[in-house]
Amino acid sequence: MDATTLHQLQAIVGRENVTVERADLLCYSYDGSNLEYPPEAVVFPSSAAEISAIMRLATEKRIPVVVRGAGTGMTGGALAVAGGIVLATSRMNRILEIDTDNHLAVVEPGVLNGDLKQAAARHGLFYPPDPASYSFCTLGGNVAEGAGGPAAVKYGVTRDYVLALEVVLADGRILHTGERTAKGVVGYDLTRLFTGSEGTLGIITKITVRLLPLPTARATLLLLCTGPDQAARLVNDILARATPCALEFMDRTAIAIVRDKFPFPLPEETGALLLVELDGDRDSVEQQADRLTDYLAGLHLPLLARAKDDEERRGLWNARRAISPASFTLKPHKLGEDVVVPRSRIPELVTATARLAAENGLPIFSFGHAGDGNLHVNIMYDRDDDNERQRARAAKERLFRITVELGGTISGEHGVGITKAPYISLERDAVFLDVMRDLKRLFDPHNILNPGKILPAEG
Amino acid sequence: MDATTLHQLQAIVGRENVTVERADLLCYSYDGSNLEYPPEAVVFPSSAAEISAIMRLATEKRIPVVVRGAGTGMTGGALAVAGGIVLATSRMNRILEIDTDNHLAVVEPGVLNGDLKQAAARHGLFYPPDPASYSFCTLGGNVAEGAGGPAAVKYGVTRDYVLALEVVLADGRILHTGERTAKGVVGYDLTRLFTGSEGTLGIITKITVRLLPLPTARATLLLLCTGPDQAARLVNDILARATPCALEFMDRTAIAIVRDKFPFPLPEETGALLLVELDGDRDSVEQQADRLTDYLAGLHLPLLARAKDDEERRGLWNARRAISPASFTLKPHKLGEDVVVPRSRIPELVTATARLAAENGLPIFSFGHAGDGNLHVNIMYDRDDDNERQRARAAKERLFRITVELGGTISGEHGVGITKAPYISLERDAVFLDVMRDLKRLFDPHNILNPGKILPAEG
Repeated sequence: MDATTLHQLQAIVGRENVTVERADLLCYSYDGSNLEYPPEAVVFPSSAAEISAIMRLATEKRIPVVVRGAGTGMTGGALAVAGGIVLATSRMNRILEIDTDNHLAVVEPGVLNGDLKQAAARHGLFYPPDPASYSFCTLGGNVAEGAGGPAAVKYGVTRDYVLALEVVLADGRILHTGERTAKGVVGYDLTRLFTGSEGTLGIITKITVRLLPLPTARATLLLLCTGPDQAARLVNDILARATPCALEFMDRTAIAIVRDKFPFPLPEETGALLLVELDGDRDSVEQQADRLTDYLAGLHLPLLARAKDDEERRGLWNARRAISPASFTLKPHKLGEDVVVPRSRIPELVTATARLAAENGLPIFSFGHAGDGNLHVNIMYDRDDDNERQRARAAKERLFRITVELGGTISGEHGVGITKAPYISLERDAVFLDVMRDLKRLFDPHNILNPGKILPAEG
Repeated sequence: MDATTLHQLQAIVGRENVTVERADLLCYSYDGSNLEYPPEAVVFPSSAAEISAIMRLATEKRIPVVVRGAGTGMTGGALAVAGGIVLATSRMNRILEIDTDNHLAVVEPGVLNGDLKQAAARHGLFYPPDPASYSFCTLGGNVAEGAGGPAAVKYGVTRDYVLALEVVLADGRILHTGERTAKGVVGYDLTRLFTGSEGTLGIITKITVRLLPLPTARATLLLLCTGPDQAARLVNDILARATPCALEFMDRTAIAIVRDKFPFPLPEETGALLLVELDGDRDSVEQQADRLTDYLAGLHLPLLARAKDDEERRGLWNARRAISPASFTLKPHKLGEDVVVPRSRIPELVTATARLAAENGLPIFSFGHAGDGNLHVNIMYDRDDDNERQRARAAKERLFRITVELGGTISGEHGVGITKAPYISLERDAVFLDVMRDLKRLFDPHNILNPGKILPAEG
């Protein structure tokens, strides 16, 4: 970055809030995708006004600007693939308002999902979206990526909670979308156009979300199954009898790698498992749990257990959340894909995954949000081995093709970023991609907002 | 319409599916807004392919195209204000699929909301959005306008159910948005960009919606209150204790005009009332209703009644739905506005409405979806009386200003159309309107898709 530009950035945000130190740049060069692209500068703005000034400068000088929350994204959304500025939202971390009368919150983009959850809970309120990284990912990132989580099966995803946004456009204009009310149809739905646009259309500087009353009780069931087919059938049976707030699946391999993390021992040979959670008030949770347990008891599953207290419940969830980190005991690297298929097609997807593993000679395993057909399929490999790398890539592309053939989507909650951009045309046709390119050009004519993301390179 | 164009349209859809007869044109010249604009031709296409051909012709000849479902819209969305073609969706009325495994339906735009509800119910499934006109309004219109209804307080609005759309663009290209899964973040959220865009960006030709399990029981409570303040306080109290699927408010005047429609007599002096409905399975509904009734009994309301059977329940709802038609006993014409304020501001809105009535010397009354702050404020007048017309317009503008000052929106579910277009800048700032105009130009460069709607004329 040239000295003039650096001085201009310092003039906008203060000397101490810009860095071009090599060591700093490295810290902001990676994210959950395990790829690395160092930016030319990292800037820490504190307001929409400062971001507006940065964007005017960036437009004038055609500098790429990549927004970064906590860097937990899985598809490279926060990586400066074309250099330029990384705009870190860590200083914009205030919860501006919790409106207890109207059940909503207004936050800056750098607020952690878990911090909002806690602040809301202090008022008896609840922010449901719960990506696995919720204790350290930011709401700005959640909105930009359209994040989901286990609770989506009952509560929906981030887009279902965003009421209004403040967005700085590429040319520095500040846009206000949405409303503070649950209903509102005045003008185009720009709120949801920016939600999930991965920082390519504008920079989110303020977020209004709706909140729900906080559930006061939970019941958590663990079901071991003979195999994925039984598990998939159970998913539908359970959804016909209850409205769980989580319905998580693990295949044989996923179970094996976190076996020692469970709060009680599991039988040696377990084909698959489901983790089912119910929430609500104490009476309705107990009733639903009893009714569901009665039904499940008649099926003679290999194991049917209910967490006896909060500690055991947390133990089950810790085992579930340990899958991703523990997977590296299988191989040093991972392609972790969050494909979604219509729920009834889960058995076919799981079968196809097993076949892919056999054909490609790699450990491939699945876990995830079975209740809405959203499975995390993990292709384990060693990226320093050329042959394994090629086989992993081939398995990934085949997985995406199978997913689309089953009527599904190649990303349920991770976004497209750079890791899925080459495959977007498996799912979206030419008209869709043309409309996307037109929108991108309209909002970002100089291609400075998170360039290189979502859309494959043209030509 | 010139003879060549007429022949070209006949060649596309068949001779019998185009009309330019004056009597026919009159039938398609009005909607729920009570305004009239006859088109030059009415066309009845049967497929996206035919609509694509119509749009190529319309683009070539710069003919305005206005889509019309059942004509129940309240803001003039289906009116041919610039002449041209009205494209009626009445022949595109097939329910293409109800996927009972994955809880979704695929329909053509001319399917009636109530017909989808019934078809889903036959499979134990439920399509929640319920505009008052649900038995005769179309899903295409619902999606185009972003329709709501009483159930929104628990279940959300139309946009919360639309998963995917097929849309014919102005130039005839056919766009497919969304996915058949509850989750999906591949590319921009075009589904919701078209939802609520009032036919100004494209023509919806196929709709995929998600369905829920059908609630098997309902309990309906009628609460009479001393006045709107008590009713507004009760709304929050009730929402803290239960999750009703309807929480409807009527003010004194609304009650008076439908008093004889209630299934049981009401006390002569009733300041306001709430209609509360709970749904779910029998056990949970009974429990919630008992708990709520216990709480409410302690408040010594003027009346607290529970519908004793389905007939009484239907009677209460018939009274609620009779308000709109019965209002014309007050005055021959009405400005019916569906403003929304944050729930806690309802008392201020109701007070302001009473003041408006006094100041303007017109009957103004409110009823509607108090649970989400969405009140239907009705300004009654005689439009053949110049002075009354002016006072009604002044009251409407003042109502919108008050709504926005209270942090609300001027339309919760009716859209903007032509009747609210002159007021949009009370709520949306110049940047928002500029972005909307840019989007409109991008999707409809020749301004042939429902011209004159939403956006006020420039300059």
